[in-house]
Amino acid sequence: MTTSPADLIITGCTALVHVEGRTDHERIAFRDDTAIVVRDGVITAVTGTAQVTGVPAAERIDARGQVALPGLINCHTHAPMAALRGVAEDLPTEEWFNDVVWPVESNLTARDVELGARLACAEMIRGGVTCFADHYFRMDTVAAVVAECGLRAHLGQVFFSSRGPRGREDSLEFALRHRGGAGGRITTALAPHAPYTVDDADLAHTARLAHEHGLPVHLHAAENRDQTEASLARHGVTPIEVLERTGLLGADAPDAPAAPDAPVEVLIAHGTGITERDLPVLERAAGRVAVATAPRGYLKFAWPTTTPVRALRAAGVPVGLATDGAASNNSLDVWASMALTALVQKSAEGDPRWLTSRQALHHATLQSARAVGLDGVVGSLAPGHRADIVLVDLTGPHTQPVHDLAATLVHSARSSDVRTTIVDGRVLMRDRELLTLDVASVARELGERLPALLDRGHGRRVQWYDT
Amino acid sequence: MTTSPADLIITGCTALVHVEGRTDHERIAFRDDTAIVVRDGVITAVTGTAQVTGVPAAERIDARGQVALPGLINCHTHAPMAALRGVAEDLPTEEWFNDVVWPVESNLTARDVELGARLACAEMIRGGVTCFADHYFRMDTVAAVVAECGLRAHLGQVFFSSRGPRGREDSLEFALRHRGGAGGRITTALAPHAPYTVDDADLAHTARLAHEHGLPVHLHAAENRDQTEASLARHGVTPIEVLERTGLLGADAPDAPAAPDAPVEVLIAHGTGITERDLPVLERAAGRVAVATAPRGYLKFAWPTTTPVRALRAAGVPVGLATDGAASNNSLDVWASMALTALVQKSAEGDPRWLTSRQALHHATLQSARAVGLDGVVGSLAPGHRADIVLVDLTGPHTQPVHDLAATLVHSARSSDVRTTIVDGRVLMRDRELLTLDVASVARELGERLPALLDRGHGRRVQWYDT
Repeated sequence: MTTSPADLIITGCTALVHVEGRTDHERIAFRDDTAIVVRDGVITAVTGTAQVTGVPAAERIDARGQVALPGLINCHTHAPMAALRGVAEDLPTEEWFNDVVWPVESNLTARDVELGARLACAEMIRGGVTCFADHYFRMDTVAAVVAECGLRAHLGQVFFSSRGPRGREDSLEFALRHRGGAGGRITTALAPHAPYTVDDADLAHTARLAHEHGLPVHLHAAENRDQTEASLARHGVTPIEVLERTGLLGADAPDAPAAPDAPVEVLIAHGTGITERDLPVLERAAGRVAVATAPRGYLKFAWPTTTPVRALRAAGVPVGLATDGAASNNSLDVWASMALTALVQKSAEGDPRWLTSRQALHHATLQSARAVGLDGVVGSLAPGHRADIVLVDLTGPHTQPVHDLAATLVHSARSSDVRTTIVDGRVLMRDRELLTLDVASVARELGERLPALLDRGHGRRVQWYDT
Repeated sequence: MTTSPADLIITGCTALVHVEGRTDHERIAFRDDTAIVVRDGVITAVTGTAQVTGVPAAERIDARGQVALPGLINCHTHAPMAALRGVAEDLPTEEWFNDVVWPVESNLTARDVELGARLACAEMIRGGVTCFADHYFRMDTVAAVVAECGLRAHLGQVFFSSRGPRGREDSLEFALRHRGGAGGRITTALAPHAPYTVDDADLAHTARLAHEHGLPVHLHAAENRDQTEASLARHGVTPIEVLERTGLLGADAPDAPAAPDAPVEVLIAHGTGITERDLPVLERAAGRVAVATAPRGYLKFAWPTTTPVRALRAAGVPVGLATDGAASNNSLDVWASMALTALVQKSAEGDPRWLTSRQALHHATLQSARAVGLDGVVGSLAPGHRADIVLVDLTGPHTQPVHDLAATLVHSARSSDVRTTIVDGRVLMRDRELLTLDVASVARELGERLPALLDRGHGRRVQWYDT
């Protein structure tokens, strides 16, 4: 243990750590009376509290009675849609898109996106989220909000083929311009919307650009069973097979460019329409592909299936946790997604022993970090990782007594039990007080802008939903 | 408006009120800038804030920016099981009962029950619950905790036939002894455990006692599909048909006593095993029967079905919201049950338009009050109802902006947004501070008692689970 001054030392916490193990379940462990030492935004030591006595530090947090976790990662969202929370309720998917969301989104100004993103970031910081993967329009504005509020983010500027080549070019330029932004907290991706809104030529072009520039790709695919069936009916292939044949799943695919410098990394949102025949395709791409699951919206839209997490894990595909946008999920609460993923997966598999709380914590940490391309960077409280840490208070009556800490965290604790949120060693929320964002002023201005934002009299929409 | 002193006046809130309407959805409305006047524990006026200017009151709460709701009702729980939160994780139902919960419950002392109940009441008050229906052992102790903490409760002392007639007699004596207790806040029920643990003779006897003493009955029935199938295989009838033929569903049943003074009121917990053939049976008993749904545990146990809420509503059967005990649900968060009921019902029906947020709020208020036999007494912010009120803060980033207040409440707000909980006009939590319970001391003593409570070396259990 060096005695040079640390930037931050957290003492006395119980820390979630990752250990060797055969299964995801076995890899989650807890270490009592732990100290976490942070220097230059990096975790430099995870040790006993007694070991840091006398180590000088610019800031110390006494976290006795609290649990330290790697910050949660929202692997798929549309942060600015926080402005649209509750505008399209109790509707089937196609009406949600065509009658409300896509008409309203044709009104979006940069200022709306900025306010929506600020609100979203405030919500996520308060919910223990330290990193989010965002997929939306006007992403320069979102990047600026990320720089301002201190979160980490994986950003992609979305495009549809209906808008011509300009959309794809903008997505590339955005990704190149912001890669490494906000002091390294921003990573970027190419962001085609989905196989049902981006044609095969554009997807293949995206795969080539991804190879050429070493950029990952973040897109929706096989969101639901209807999309898979429509794709089969129209093209004879599933959306996942479209990803493969357009080269997005890596160099082994039929039409992929030869000898790429780097494998494409693809983050697939939802995948509730992934079928049996897709599994070998995904298995061939294992190591280059991940899926984000956001189960709340699937229930709300009454989709007939959920993300096939068990089959994906068997195929070697990590599954990260997500919320999707607040216009479908109604919240950006990754903690709730963690609990709901455990519950829904047990139910879908008909197996109460599946997706234990420790498995859920593995999805929330290592698998989510892998999904957004940040494995080894975040997702674990281990030396060398960026200091993205949340401190959780379990003294409330709803989290007592603690017989099984993993179960308490997943099934009893809530996002509102997060007391402190830290990104890159910087405290963004202390004792539930946000330090980088002013919610009241954002909500006030957003309220004034809502009539113009919600106007659908013009008949425009950004895209037409037709699987 | 009288100007005699009020005990409590809440001003400036938006109040959830019930209005005339064809459907459950249409019956929920919101009234801005509202004042609620309380005298002697009763709501005496719900009016405009301007109308109460100058009205003297012992206590005033300025609730501008907050929403006033009828307090939530937990229609089926086992409060003392809060002590067992997390002891039996990721297990099938039969192992959960036989290997863990029923062996551990054979260790329960009155002090364990007292501490568990205190913890549960603290959690419920913090979660906006003002009334709970409890079904457990050593209920004298629970009644004492209810008297102490200020909640309202509907209590029943559970019994199994395996314990002989003494259990049934105790259940009756408890119900008679505590009816009207805690200043009228306690109502009571006879509480046979379930048709698979209480034989037909005991159920018929219970029906006669219920008629004789004007007591309702609270029991588990058709908890899951396996129980229904086992009942059909062994007895040729479903659990719901067992309730009918033993006279529990009312006077028209074959073996029921003639001309009872009052119809039996039956509260059925769970009912996920209710089948098509049960619906006419329940429809015949409409007005005398209700079901409590606690969907979290059904997912966690991976039961294949959930409570058939749509079919029950069509049959005229109210469905109240519940959590079950914290050893299966891991929380007593009725707010979460409300949201999950909406989500799971949409999914189960394959219909995103079903179980709207307003429908969910109807279940949470009028239907839950009906389920626990307190319709007209609680469940509505209307003059003449007891003053069981919660105030909810929607200024957090996760509940902004508000496009659709019902959706914000059900799908974005959480139990932790409840600021103030009031029962019978008495403030039990103010600005999230509990005024009648000391969580830290309860958790400390419970922690000391856990090794003895959890010991399973003796090989005893309170009952054997075999559907």
